[in-house]
Amino acid sequence: MVVRTGEQYLQSISNRSKVEIYVMGREVKDVTKHPFLKPSVMSFKATFDAAWEEDTKELGRAWSPYLEEEINRFNHIHRSPDDLAAKVKLLRKLSHKTGACFQRCVGWDSLNTLHIVTTMMAKKGKTEVRDRFVEYLKYVQKNDLALAGAMTDAKGIRNLKPSQQPNKNAYLRITEVTKDGIYVSGAKANITGVAATEEMVVLPTRAMGPEDKDYAVAFAIPTDTEGVKIVVGRQLNDARRMEEGEIDGLPYFYNHEGLVIFDNVFVPMNRVFLAGEWEYTGTLVEIFSAYHRQGYGGCKAGLGDVIIGASADLAKQIGVDRASHVQDKLTEMIFLTETMYSAGIAASLNAVKMCDNCWWVNPMHANVTKHLVARFPSQIAQLSIDLAGGIVGTAPSEWDLKNPKLKEYISRYLQGAEDFTAEDRLRMVRLVENVSMGVAFQIESVHGAGSPAAQRIMFSRLYDLNFAQEVAKKLAGRKSEVKFTSKAEPWRESQSEAEAKEAGLKS
Amino acid sequence: MVVRTGEQYLQSISNRSKVEIYVMGREVKDVTKHPFLKPSVMSFKATFDAAWEEDTKELGRAWSPYLEEEINRFNHIHRSPDDLAAKVKLLRKLSHKTGACFQRCVGWDSLNTLHIVTTMMAKKGKTEVRDRFVEYLKYVQKNDLALAGAMTDAKGIRNLKPSQQPNKNAYLRITEVTKDGIYVSGAKANITGVAATEEMVVLPTRAMGPEDKDYAVAFAIPTDTEGVKIVVGRQLNDARRMEEGEIDGLPYFYNHEGLVIFDNVFVPMNRVFLAGEWEYTGTLVEIFSAYHRQGYGGCKAGLGDVIIGASADLAKQIGVDRASHVQDKLTEMIFLTETMYSAGIAASLNAVKMCDNCWWVNPMHANVTKHLVARFPSQIAQLSIDLAGGIVGTAPSEWDLKNPKLKEYISRYLQGAEDFTAEDRLRMVRLVENVSMGVAFQIESVHGAGSPAAQRIMFSRLYDLNFAQEVAKKLAGRKSEVKFTSKAEPWRESQSEAEAKEAGLKS
Amino acid sequence: MVVRTGEQYLQSISNRSKVEIYVMGREVKDVTKHPFLKPSVMSFKATFDAAWEEDTKELGRAWSPYLEEEINRFNHIHRSPDDLAAKVKLLRKLSHKTGACFQRCVGWDSLNTLHIVTTMMAKKGKTEVRDRFVEYLKYVQKNDLALAGAMTDAKGIRNLKPSQQPNKNAYLRITEVTKDGIYVSGAKANITGVAATEEMVVLPTRAMGPEDKDYAVAFAIPTDTEGVKIVVGRQLNDARRMEEGEIDGLPYFYNHEGLVIFDNVFVPMNRVFLAGEWEYTGTLVEIFSAYHRQGYGGCKAGLGDVIIGASADLAKQIGVDRASHVQDKLTEMIFLTETMYSAGIAASLNAVKMCDNCWWVNPMHANVTKHLVARFPSQIAQLSIDLAGGIVGTAPSEWDLKNPKLKEYISRYLQGAEDFTAEDRLRMVRLVENVSMGVAFQIESVHGAGSPAAQRIMFSRLYDLNFAQEVAKKLAGRKSEVKFTSKAEPWRESQSEAEAKEAGLKS
Amino acid sequence: MVVRTGEQYLQSISNRSKVEIYVMGREVKDVTKHPFLKPSVMSFKATFDAAWEEDTKELGRAWSPYLEEEINRFNHIHRSPDDLAAKVKLLRKLSHKTGACFQRCVGWDSLNTLHIVTTMMAKKGKTEVRDRFVEYLKYVQKNDLALAGAMTDAKGIRNLKPSQQPNKNAYLRITEVTKDGIYVSGAKANITGVAATEEMVVLPTRAMGPEDKDYAVAFAIPTDTEGVKIVVGRQLNDARRMEEGEIDGLPYFYNHEGLVIFDNVFVPMNRVFLAGEWEYTGTLVEIFSAYHRQGYGGCKAGLGDVIIGASADLAKQIGVDRASHVQDKLTEMIFLTETMYSAGIAASLNAVKMCDNCWWVNPMHANVTKHLVARFPSQIAQLSIDLAGGIVGTAPSEWDLKNPKLKEYISRYLQGAEDFTAEDRLRMVRLVENVSMGVAFQIESVHGAGSPAAQRIMFSRLYDLNFAQEVAKKLAGRKSEVKFTSKAEPWRESQSEAEAKEAGLKS
Repeated sequence: MVVRTGEQYLQSISNRSKVEIYVMGREVKDVTKHPFLKPSVMSFKATFDAAWEEDTKELGRAWSPYLEEEINRFNHIHRSPDDLAAKVKLLRKLSHKTGACFQRCVGWDSLNTLHIVTTMMAKKGKTEVRDRFVEYLKYVQKNDLALAGAMTDAKGIRNLKPSQQPNKNAYLRITEVTKDGIYVSGAKANITGVAATEEMVVLPTRAMGPEDKDYAVAFAIPTDTEGVKIVVGRQLNDARRMEEGEIDGLPYFYNHEGLVIFDNVFVPMNRVFLAGEWEYTGTLVEIFSAYHRQGYGGCKAGLGDVIIGASADLAKQIGVDRASHVQDKLTEMIFLTETMYSAGIAASLNAVKMCDNCWWVNPMHANVTKHLVARFPSQIAQLSIDLAGGIVGTAPSEWDLKNPKLKEYISRYLQGAEDFTAEDRLRMVRLVENVSMGVAFQIESVHGAGSPAAQRIMFSRLYDLNFAQEVAKKLAGRKSEVKFTSKAEPWRESQSEAEAKEAGLKS
Repeated sequence: MVVRTGEQYLQSISNRSKVEIYVMGREVKDVTKHPFLKPSVMSFKATFDAAWEEDTKELGRAWSPYLEEEINRFNHIHRSPDDLAAKVKLLRKLSHKTGACFQRCVGWDSLNTLHIVTTMMAKKGKTEVRDRFVEYLKYVQKNDLALAGAMTDAKGIRNLKPSQQPNKNAYLRITEVTKDGIYVSGAKANITGVAATEEMVVLPTRAMGPEDKDYAVAFAIPTDTEGVKIVVGRQLNDARRMEEGEIDGLPYFYNHEGLVIFDNVFVPMNRVFLAGEWEYTGTLVEIFSAYHRQGYGGCKAGLGDVIIGASADLAKQIGVDRASHVQDKLTEMIFLTETMYSAGIAASLNAVKMCDNCWWVNPMHANVTKHLVARFPSQIAQLSIDLAGGIVGTAPSEWDLKNPKLKEYISRYLQGAEDFTAEDRLRMVRLVENVSMGVAFQIESVHGAGSPAAQRIMFSRLYDLNFAQEVAKKLAGRKSEVKFTSKAEPWRESQSEAEAKEAGLKS
Repeated sequence: MVVRTGEQYLQSISNRSKVEIYVMGREVKDVTKHPFLKPSVMSFKATFDAAWEEDTKELGRAWSPYLEEEINRFNHIHRSPDDLAAKVKLLRKLSHKTGACFQRCVGWDSLNTLHIVTTMMAKKGKTEVRDRFVEYLKYVQKNDLALAGAMTDAKGIRNLKPSQQPNKNAYLRITEVTKDGIYVSGAKANITGVAATEEMVVLPTRAMGPEDKDYAVAFAIPTDTEGVKIVVGRQLNDARRMEEGEIDGLPYFYNHEGLVIFDNVFVPMNRVFLAGEWEYTGTLVEIFSAYHRQGYGGCKAGLGDVIIGASADLAKQIGVDRASHVQDKLTEMIFLTETMYSAGIAASLNAVKMCDNCWWVNPMHANVTKHLVARFPSQIAQLSIDLAGGIVGTAPSEWDLKNPKLKEYISRYLQGAEDFTAEDRLRMVRLVENVSMGVAFQIESVHGAGSPAAQRIMFSRLYDLNFAQEVAKKLAGRKSEVKFTSKAEPWRESQSEAEAKEAGLKS
Repeated sequence: MVVRTGEQYLQSISNRSKVEIYVMGREVKDVTKHPFLKPSVMSFKATFDAAWEEDTKELGRAWSPYLEEEINRFNHIHRSPDDLAAKVKLLRKLSHKTGACFQRCVGWDSLNTLHIVTTMMAKKGKTEVRDRFVEYLKYVQKNDLALAGAMTDAKGIRNLKPSQQPNKNAYLRITEVTKDGIYVSGAKANITGVAATEEMVVLPTRAMGPEDKDYAVAFAIPTDTEGVKIVVGRQLNDARRMEEGEIDGLPYFYNHEGLVIFDNVFVPMNRVFLAGEWEYTGTLVEIFSAYHRQGYGGCKAGLGDVIIGASADLAKQIGVDRASHVQDKLTEMIFLTETMYSAGIAASLNAVKMCDNCWWVNPMHANVTKHLVARFPSQIAQLSIDLAGGIVGTAPSEWDLKNPKLKEYISRYLQGAEDFTAEDRLRMVRLVENVSMGVAFQIESVHGAGSPAAQRIMFSRLYDLNFAQEVAKKLAGRKSEVKFTSKAEPWRESQSEAEAKEAGLKS
């Protein structure tokens, strides 16, 4: 087992009788067969295939000290800055294969987050939680499971805390604790890829105070646990995938998000990692967010590559690929893409050691990465629309191209340069339409791992504005309290680093 | 007749047996019944209703000196700068009613373009063409017809002229001239709203030389003329409109573009306005483009208003409408929207008189307007996605909300502040999704009336770079040839103004 | 008299024995002789010359109904939208002649502001204030005086009102009222061109409440009134003007700002326009700001032209003027420049009638204009630096070029294409340095007529966000209170328009 | 010796009788005494002090395998990715101490460049060049010399090669070769800090062909070599430093650039590294540029910190530091600053091994870094101007503040919050003025290490556009030649890497 093939994953995921999944109001049993979900399953599958394919085999695997075996990297605990960089590099390559989000990062980041947090807890005495987590980790690694990470709550009214909400279910909460486990109710929203996973790791979505302790809950359960209902969300252009065609719904890979409803769900105690320990929620959220923000520097750069390639191809098809303004727009797209990637690489290689053999991303660089990702994809998309031409909003359907009464005309009028066919053009236009304007590139880029405002809060927190002011005062010849003694980079220690240090982990 | 009601238009458009329209490979007879086309018909209808509704009645009508009667403004020849401004103001208001492109501007701009060009031709001796056009104009005004403007050719290889194309049909061309009329073959692409129109005005898409004279052709025909085939293009999210629901496919108004195929179509001579007079093509294209670019300052500002309103509502639903970053993003959207509008207003009120009672937009301001429209909507869209939240890419379908097993859960988890329901939220999310990311706002904004590169060429042409250099040389204390004698604004005369002057029209 | 020549102004301004002006700590008597102030005087002079030069003669003059004579337009009360547009057009042309701010707009805008406000006051019974103002206006027009407008106070702590400031002098205030006049103390900061003016019009800088009534003061006095001290501010590169050279300090025209100190200054009653009437301060500030914001669409576009010309010349000097990236950058600068201008034109021609023969700018468009001006010049400057090359920060001085030991070398190494000399290049580099990075373009563009935050407040106030929300709700199929009945543009009435209406002026 | 103190450097640099330096046309003998050059010398000195100060001692030194001793890092050959990161980190810290460019990077980057290039030459047989270089390197390290790097030629007409220029001296060239050495004539322009250095390393500025071999020349000479003339360039606000004050010319540290004229200068053979080997010029330029582009991610981020601190202080002085728009603008400045830095870090840690113990920066990330630096500083500057207020362009001089007749007034009107004085405000305003608008931040950021267009050429070269197109074709379901076999990051090998590989260095 240990490193599964894509086929093994497919087989496992198609065989789930208890799972409760809804798409557009109807229950779906076999996600591998449903036209809406299949592309998403195929993207997940790509993360398994990556561990076997020539270009990604090395990046796609890692050595687990827990199993003393090679595992799929998507369930690996990062043991070095190079491990973190391997994540970003792998994600970029996987985007080339799917042109979509492959959805397995959230679970991965959740594992790494719980690894650090439970290690902190152990240092402060809660060793049993750390033990539980390690057992779970080994189970996941051993079986090479496809994990979802479930974090975002419904949230109700944004400026009220969980315990202040008029709707008590606005945040997932513990309704009962027994000797054997806990019962939870509520929902997690926007859960990436959840219908295609075997397990869910559930984490709290915000820092909480003592009054919110019923909401301070983290655990892992099988996706088909009783009481769990998954409602798959709609996406731009989704209905095309329900058509029978081959072109209009391109690409064949996609992603999905789901609303996960927990209706009095039981979680056995050996799967519970946080149940009331509100004091760890802030750190947990900060650690997770930074991990997840770093990753976007890889996957979104990879989608950028796809869009750049598609735009260049379309320019070639109509004979303008050497025009200076086309070259310039492609160059701009390259610059934007590579900027996102370089921030992701910096977040990885300039990493923070949080415990023995356990590395966190650099939180400042990780937030820079995500903030860039919240801005640049819409610029890349607009440039690709510019280069693709009006046809991206007006192209006929594949059914027109197949209609014998129209085929000849359309072939003639869609064709540009002679070595391309109308179908070549139509296929590439559809790819641009569905990737550039797709959920992964336009919306997940903005909101994934926290909306832009969340990164801005982190910039304020991490940046040492006081130091900057004292530096300026000194240069202005005013009385300044700056002391040039710190050897560190000019940032404040993050809350998570401080916690790790306090727990005796980080030196 | 003269000023039709929306209902009269609907009745007329549903009754066309000869028209040949295809949607997704299948022929459609009654466009008012087809779920894909109906929203587009409803948008067209709004231009007729506008002439009767309280807020737009004045803007929606104009007095025609040709008929000596009041007509719908969409078929009016602009007689003053105020007329031009009325266009921009009307378009903004119409966007509020439809949240979509209402598609009737292209025909309107085509009429105004032909009015100037045929007046030039008359001054140079071709009075019969001018007479034909005036007859046609009166017919259109009298019957308050819904017109398409058909300009963009298939174009083949972009850097070759029509006559150089390996594919002879890359541009629409005259295949035969008889005493009674002309025969044309080829296609026009991206023709806005064409399936919902009664007549098409066909214009050449680029400046041509003597070798291209077979391609220098302008005329008007009924949309259901024999040999005309309309293939309706696909759009982001179009398939949702084919579903039966009420929410996911919002708004109820939309627009469409079609590929119009001309298979040896006969045009009677009294409908032919250009047949080989290549020397007018450059001017014609410049005049049309500027008219059409001006208009975007109205309609896209109106869509901006819709998106601003939707974003503000969603912020209120989750209780963040007073947050400073939300206020600031709304303000930015207002600024971007009002900038597009103010350029459109300048293009109107700082207009150019081209003949007696005939005004053209200011070409510099009109190009500024469109270039802003090619940039700002994607910024507005991104801000709206930011404010709407991740839900814009993950919201469940209306069918989930209606499923009795899910309804209660979804109602609970989608709701924010208490005075809104889950359905309120879902409806507004769908509006944002379909307007912000829609074809009209994201793609037509870039490519309509010419891609960004086309405006940049006009900036170079209209701006007097030599004057600017001489000014700089003088200020630098160098020998300068600047003479401060011209009372005009610091632009070069456009080709069209020069032509009008040469024809003795413009003084 | 009435329309003075530049020479007449020069003569008048050089003859002031009582004026108290300081430059870098030293008192200056004749501003026309001082190397720091002379360029600023020359810019002022250009506004007089404009009324006599061929290209600007028409724009530079206007007909005054008060005198029934032709006057210099810079003291004219706008009687039509065309008058407002003439202002913007004139300012653009004047920038071509000076490459600098000519400083006479603030006084002009102050006159127009007081004209509307005193008309409102008259309608509410204070006819004597209106009479005083008209007398003053006639005096100014008759003698064609150079006016400063003094508005910005020292302001102390920004979030405290005048009456709350610990420093009682943070805002200019009335210290005593007598039968004959008032005594004022305090200061006005950032007063453009003040040392080169004959009169100052002093206005309050913010909306005030009843508790601030001692600070609600407006009046006009000669610049050389006893107790007035002017401290001229420093500017980037100012010290070069104190050198003796001809090149390094280019251009020969410039502008200045001064801190104006009022040390118990007496103002005779016939020059007092506001003395405690706090209820007019909000309107006064709003009216002034909008007038002044509109004007920037002209003068900054004119500076844009100068910079575009200089950049094009430098590109030509090194043989890259045909390179596509150079062309593209010039085009971008043109677009940015023309966008500012078109907003200014819209603010003028889509104007608001405030009383008989008295027009205010469109407040929304005027705020758009200024907000664009707060953003685009720094982009234009950066593009000009890009095109000018590193030399803009490293060029030798003119003294090196004149040194016989260096002259030959420098001539050789600074020269590019053969038809230019090293001096040609040096002169143009200096122009770019001093205009692109100059105070007028980089700093006044941001802060003049209110900082960017001030315009954003106006966007929120003027935009009808509630209407936009109701429109969105209707399109989303929700219950909406929108009524499509208003024929107006989709903005809220500004406070000033409401005041005018309430006073029975605006219909 | 080996690690000199700042004082030792000062002493050495003040004692040069033969050096020929001109400032504003006059010769300067002791650069440490001249008011224009002293601030620049102080910045250089900071690089020596850094090796002794607590916070930078570790970063400021490195262990040289050539000397087997500790040296100043500014003369170190990078032996690891961590060495490269240490450079970026050190530069950021040094910016905090100077608020200016410290000018020692160009020499440092030149040494590292020659190290790789001469190693390549050695592998191809030219071992004597490598030996010469190592001797020179040891001399430089041993004596801890201050080096300039001289690269940019006068260039004449940009689109002509050196040998095609009508002016034969447009590029530095070899005029004679003797047994003992070479004679060179021409000039190098924009040479940073040159007047404050002890040695110059001279490199070619562009790729050359065989016809340009007289121009393919690299060598090192003492700055006071006979025939070398240095003409120091002017800068924004430079003349203020020649005033006697303490405030208006802030900060006390600065940088300078010089035009270096070579009038038949003799270079002994043991200092010649390239003399006709044109085939290495392309690689040399590429290697140098990437090293230098990486560094900007450190120093410009450090200047960003200074500006952020100054802006925050000024906001506090007028009581608006808690205003949401102020906080948001500071956050934006932080984001922009940290983005530049993270790219620089990525360029360092994701480095390229070019030979044993010799690492080059990642060329893609390094170009991203510089391109960001060409864009973001002007945005940061504009935000700082926005926050500083209009006062940045209008503040009185320090001489006004010292004038007894004005002192009290100015103290009163410039002060904001009570715990700050007018002088506090004035000093900080001057710092913003001179750093935000300074040459280092505004102009060097654009043009240093190559203008933006140069980076864009590198993006095109390094990015594998063909791979991207094949990826897109595969996802579009078209025939694609993509093979997912390469384990590398998705870039093309740079020319320099290919050369290193071909020479048997890089494996």
